Amino acid sequence: MVSRLEKLAVQRIAIEGISPEIDGGRFPAKAVAGEPVEVEADIFSDGHDKIAAALLYRAEHEADWREAPMALFDNDRWRGTFIPELNARYLYTIIAWRDRFESWRDEISKKHAAGVDIAVELVEGRNLIEEAVSASPRAGDEDRGVLAAVIAAVDATEDRTTRFEAMMAAGVSVAMERAAAREALTQREPPLPLTVDRQRAAFGAWYELMPRSMSDDPQRHGTFDDVIGKLDYVSKLGFDVLYFPPIHPIGTAFRKGKNNTLTPGPDDPGSPYAIGSPEGGHDAIHPQLGSFEDFARLVKAARDQGLEIAIDFAIQCSPDHPWIKDHPEWFDWRPDGTIKYAENPPKKYQDIVNVDFYGKGFPDLWYALRDIVLFWARHEVRIFRVDNPHTKPFPFWEWMIAEVQTQYPDAIFLAEAFTRPKVMKRLAKVGFTQSYSYFTWRNTKWELTTYLTELTQTDSKFVMRPNFFVNTPDINPVFLQTSGRPGFRTRLVLAASLGGNYGVYSGFELCEATPVPGKEEYLDSEKYEIKAWDWDRPGHIRPDIALMNRLRRAHPALQVFANVTFYNAWNDNILYYGKATPDKTDFILFAVNLDPHNAQGCDFEVPLWEFGLPDEASIEAEDLVNGNRFTWYGKIQHVWLDPHNNPYAIWRLNPLGDTAR
Amino acid sequence: MVSRLEKLAVQRIAIEGISPEIDGGRFPAKAVAGEPVEVEADIFSDGHDKIAAALLYRAEHEADWREAPMALFDNDRWRGTFIPELNARYLYTIIAWRDRFESWRDEISKKHAAGVDIAVELVEGRNLIEEAVSASPRAGDEDRGVLAAVIAAVDATEDRTTRFEAMMAAGVSVAMERAAAREALTQREPPLPLTVDRQRAAFGAWYELMPRSMSDDPQRHGTFDDVIGKLDYVSKLGFDVLYFPPIHPIGTAFRKGKNNTLTPGPDDPGSPYAIGSPEGGHDAIHPQLGSFEDFARLVKAARDQGLEIAIDFAIQCSPDHPWIKDHPEWFDWRPDGTIKYAENPPKKYQDIVNVDFYGKGFPDLWYALRDIVLFWARHEVRIFRVDNPHTKPFPFWEWMIAEVQTQYPDAIFLAEAFTRPKVMKRLAKVGFTQSYSYFTWRNTKWELTTYLTELTQTDSKFVMRPNFFVNTPDINPVFLQTSGRPGFRTRLVLAASLGGNYGVYSGFELCEATPVPGKEEYLDSEKYEIKAWDWDRPGHIRPDIALMNRLRRAHPALQVFANVTFYNAWNDNILYYGKATPDKTDFILFAVNLDPHNAQGCDFEVPLWEFGLPDEASIEAEDLVNGNRFTWYGKIQHVWLDPHNNPYAIWRLNPLGDTAR
Repeated sequence: MVSRLEKLAVQRIAIEGISPEIDGGRFPAKAVAGEPVEVEADIFSDGHDKIAAALLYRAEHEADWREAPMALFDNDRWRGTFIPELNARYLYTIIAWRDRFESWRDEISKKHAAGVDIAVELVEGRNLIEEAVSASPRAGDEDRGVLAAVIAAVDATEDRTTRFEAMMAAGVSVAMERAAAREALTQREPPLPLTVDRQRAAFGAWYELMPRSMSDDPQRHGTFDDVIGKLDYVSKLGFDVLYFPPIHPIGTAFRKGKNNTLTPGPDDPGSPYAIGSPEGGHDAIHPQLGSFEDFARLVKAARDQGLEIAIDFAIQCSPDHPWIKDHPEWFDWRPDGTIKYAENPPKKYQDIVNVDFYGKGFPDLWYALRDIVLFWARHEVRIFRVDNPHTKPFPFWEWMIAEVQTQYPDAIFLAEAFTRPKVMKRLAKVGFTQSYSYFTWRNTKWELTTYLTELTQTDSKFVMRPNFFVNTPDINPVFLQTSGRPGFRTRLVLAASLGGNYGVYSGFELCEATPVPGKEEYLDSEKYEIKAWDWDRPGHIRPDIALMNRLRRAHPALQVFANVTFYNAWNDNILYYGKATPDKTDFILFAVNLDPHNAQGCDFEVPLWEFGLPDEASIEAEDLVNGNRFTWYGKIQHVWLDPHNNPYAIWRLNPLGDTAR
Repeated sequence: MVSRLEKLAVQRIAIEGISPEIDGGRFPAKAVAGEPVEVEADIFSDGHDKIAAALLYRAEHEADWREAPMALFDNDRWRGTFIPELNARYLYTIIAWRDRFESWRDEISKKHAAGVDIAVELVEGRNLIEEAVSASPRAGDEDRGVLAAVIAAVDATEDRTTRFEAMMAAGVSVAMERAAAREALTQREPPLPLTVDRQRAAFGAWYELMPRSMSDDPQRHGTFDDVIGKLDYVSKLGFDVLYFPPIHPIGTAFRKGKNNTLTPGPDDPGSPYAIGSPEGGHDAIHPQLGSFEDFARLVKAARDQGLEIAIDFAIQCSPDHPWIKDHPEWFDWRPDGTIKYAENPPKKYQDIVNVDFYGKGFPDLWYALRDIVLFWARHEVRIFRVDNPHTKPFPFWEWMIAEVQTQYPDAIFLAEAFTRPKVMKRLAKVGFTQSYSYFTWRNTKWELTTYLTELTQTDSKFVMRPNFFVNTPDINPVFLQTSGRPGFRTRLVLAASLGGNYGVYSGFELCEATPVPGKEEYLDSEKYEIKAWDWDRPGHIRPDIALMNRLRRAHPALQVFANVTFYNAWNDNILYYGKATPDKTDFILFAVNLDPHNAQGCDFEVPLWEFGLPDEASIEAEDLVNGNRFTWYGKIQHVWLDPHNNPYAIWRLNPLGDTAR
């Protein structure tokens, strides 16, 4: 039994204000395998002794901690960095100790400089070194050798200055740092969790399409093979992820007709979100799309084109879902013997009923839902876009995602929660890899700057990775309904540059925005009918998309989310910002005209100071849209952005000049 | 063995962002017995169901939780208040649950309003009520009766509107709130700690004096009886706490002479901080001051005058301290057989050696030090000013203060740590009741505003209670060295109004500020010699002190620390602020001329808006310095503060007018 005194006594050094530390360690921060994790903390002790600190980290399944140094950088604040190499759950923590030898060095130096007698201090220093040689389990043979030699040198002379200088040699410090016992070693307990994902979790361009619309014939239901025929189109645009809404059998009970009507025609295919029919449920494929063999062929063909398939995980059932008969205890039955259909009064979703997470089916239902995800993971799907997760319990997600990632650490979950900010952040904290965001509705300079600052400059950045969708089958943004082609181009550039992850729902590249009048919905939505698109429709913006995805792949500065800086451009219609690698060798600037109707110009500041250059310096730049190279002379420059010609500008700064490239 | 799934599943409702919650619950927040504790948190669940939340709280030694309601006030943010009545350690936490009946009310109301059929909803509502009557352990007899009557009324009719209205009655809601089972009940675990102190912890005016200087004769060592003779003086000034530097035997080895010299004369009394001589150590009284009987008489006499005695706890020993012989293992011996004396190279404190907290004497030394405090607590001392706590280990304080407060919950510890901000805050977190602060060096409007904002508007306010000392035996502030009497008056007013706790070291009231040239130290400091003061020296500021202490006792608005608001006064030499009770019945304004040399005037804003009044309204005010009453017409008013006449103004706002008083 450890007494309170003993328990407290081992925490001599304060380690607090750790960043990242999510809700006191209750939730993991997020990182990417192979990319550095920077950890900061306030670390200090009583008195004036020197202290030292280090990070400890390991994958959860590893037995031994690895260690990375920390260094003081400001007012008791320390910083260190480690690189988790594996796509796995990690743990990290901080240790700190009192560094007796450095304290001794500090004290004897001051006294020596002040001309004070140091006879006793010389003996004390020698004793510290001897202790490291003879008694410290940390000392390796090489350090022991170095230190023993110092002792011999000290013992061989009576001359104080010689002894002082022998012990003050830099090599002695290095050896003592490795060899000496760590006094008052304090460790932050328990260690903090970290989810280390693969890179696609943090950086990817998504393209969403409805497989059944890929026949290019509204009379013929598209198939997985039709999708294979479209892979080249998507791949040439430079996307990384190809995402399908649900591909499962669709119920017929209360099936929705065109434009969400309650009176479907006999050929209306229904909403793919009304999952389940006699042909199967969440672990089946809608027969008209193809077989599991077809699906496997599609997954492989996509991979060959550099595309990864993402599917939908929508926990809801059509009234025809097999579970309703097989597992009535998984649903909440009403006094009249019906199951409640989904509604947000007075809105109704008559073709969908919800499961009851805490009903009689608990916890079997939870296992079954987890097993659906595992089923698709075994079919080589590792990216899941999750429908409306905020209407299902947080504990379910926290448990399920961890269960799946234990077997498939490469599994990625995108939360489609458009709801209150704290709910969205909680979903990210409980485990969602990515999150839909408010980007879709942030249009003005103030809105974009404020929102991006919140996402990139607060704790949010450690847990929430937004995926900036420009549109979705459910969201035909008001801005795009009235912006025309220039608005599509600028929204694309904003999403692709500001979002580590971003997404486009097919039709966007064709500038499709015909709404249900007065609503943010698409008229004749694909959710309720099969569409055929003219993929070469005049006015499409494929070149912009291909350019942005090419730049994203070519430029490390664009592969990180939280590195955006907003710079001064004196026009509220022009958003001007930069993204750069930490070493600034890749430094990209964007100027975007947020006004889709009028040309806008302004003076703006070239951030010469980022390179330590004076305001009147010159700097080479490259126009990444047109390929020109030129030199800017001085900090203040001017830009003119015409929505119908050049609604945006993208420059790469090259402070060292072309010769150095 | 509870599985991860089960452990997570019971946390259906998110309870996060709790305030106060110090370092994730690692440290207690602070409160005052009988005063409200306001707790906030983000509380939300999945889906659209209504939720409810409550605070649980109890003294640690109590078995049962008490409950206080919480209410939603903003964007998933909830707030509740409880009043801890005891001076004890408390625990508090938050519970939340899904309120099925309120959710039902919400849904059926919307449907009813939309003209949707509610037949099934009526049955569901009746079932919820019946469940509460028959199956909920929470239902009391009275509620059971109310609810059973509703069921009878519902069952007695087929009319839907009658049934709807019966169940929607307000009384049913109230009864269901008390009676219905709480679904998905989630509790924040573990509960959070709270130190509930007595009022003197948060609100007190301190007067510090050297007992040995109370003979009014530099040739005669003052005694406790001399101090008794001064109680009337201190009490008439309105102070609450009378604090003495160490009263223990003073060592003779390396005794310091006048003005901190190393060559004392035979009659020099030495620094009282060089504790310990053959006559005893920390549990003894310096013989020239008197006996324990004298001390007891002093404590009682002080209490009779409304004064509480505070003593010093300085963990350091003169080389003559009995512990050095009796417990050599409590000290860190050097290779030359000496104990290191205190130093901050190249500064030296030759008359003091320090104990070694983690040496061979661990943990016996810790027990011995705790027992010293307990010893004085048994001698009726419950306020300890602790010397230099930042040079002793944090874990020692955390353990020791809790140990003492378990026996003496009324024990108060003031940390005399003038060091880096995070170290000072940590000392407050580990248990110090009060803290010395940087106030002593904050003189400009910007400095005072910034510092007070940090102390009152951040988490700091939950753990750190500054004690605003205007001077100490160690600090003769540069400002006062040059300000003359006006500066003493304004610093007094600032400390007494801005600090819940504030302190004055004797001599301040006499405007004593003669420095050791170029230093912040007093010339001929009392630390090294016996002084005799002319208590009626011309120019003293006793009337200001008495006024401020009288106002502090009379006005609840001045008895709380974190309620200061800085208002606009358009002159950087005039600090203008208000303190008010939450209900604004006590609303005091201060305008202080920070320039001790020149008269300053300015326009300022009377905060009419705080009372919901328009800018052109009039308001009654009372001049609390001169006693005048008058009316301000309009928001903008003017003040003129002459350092030699009226360096400060204090007004009480009386929005209801005198007739309402």
